[in-house]
Amino acid sequence: MIKVPGLLPFILIAAMQTFCSCDHKPPTPEQNQMVRLAKLVIDSTQLESYKAALKEEIEASVRLEPGVLTLYAVAEKNNPTHITILEIYADTNAYKAHLQTPHFIKYKTDTKEMVQSLELVETTPLIPGMKIK
Amino acid sequence: MIKVPGLLPFILIAAMQTFCSCDHKPPTPEQNQMVRLAKLVIDSTQLESYKAALKEEIEASVRLEPGVLTLYAVAEKNNPTHITILEIYADTNAYKAHLQTPHFIKYKTDTKEMVQSLELVETTPLIPGMKIK
Repeated sequence: MIKVPGLLPFILIAAMQTFCSCDHKPPTPEQNQMVRLAKLVIDSTQLESYKAALKEEIEASVRLEPGVLTLYAVAEKNNPTHITILEIYADTNAYKAHLQTPHFIKYKTDTKEMVQSLELVETTPLIPGMKIK
Repeated sequence: MIKVPGLLPFILIAAMQTFCSCDHKPPTPEQNQMVRLAKLVIDSTQLESYKAALKEEIEASVRLEPGVLTLYAVAEKNNPTHITILEIYADTNAYKAHLQTPHFIKYKTDTKEMVQSLELVETTPLIPGMKIK
């Protein structure tokens, strides 16, 4: 048996570096973003009320919360009760803080009976940091 | 019969203004925007090639075409072959011009066999002019 106690730490470090070949750069702010599609179907008899409540909530969120990067809501032309929202938060903490704001809680309460279905789809952006001109 | 020829034009104009009480303000640039959701399903064996082609096409479009305001593409975390793109064009002419660009034609040609389905959903934005911070 050959004794190489002086080399052992170096061998171990080299082995660990080989094994753990993943990229250890810390994530950029854009890579921390939480990007989601919210897909909603609204009661057609309450659509205008719903849209007014959503508009108010989005405008307050974008104005008051630096971590809400966008809430881009669209209604399908052929199915106006089908709403999709592209939601971008700076990170999960910004999203958690958003859920506690008075304007979000008011929106959730006021629209509870208007929303027939809500699907939240977590996504990965193809180009993090993409903007709207 | 009372003759009021001098007043007649004014009466007619007033009547027309009353009758035509609709809002005749010309649309703002934001109201001319074309906003769409493209929903794609990609062949899983060609997903990485597809994403590379889409990324190249989006980066060229946004850089070279002032009328392409965004092409924000996301992949669903639980269904990575399901891609949604929020497409915003300044107006329909900007969209028509986009279809004729070499980078769009290259993308369409190169990805033809990768795309299993494509649904184009025309939409109305809730807040035209909404940005991404």
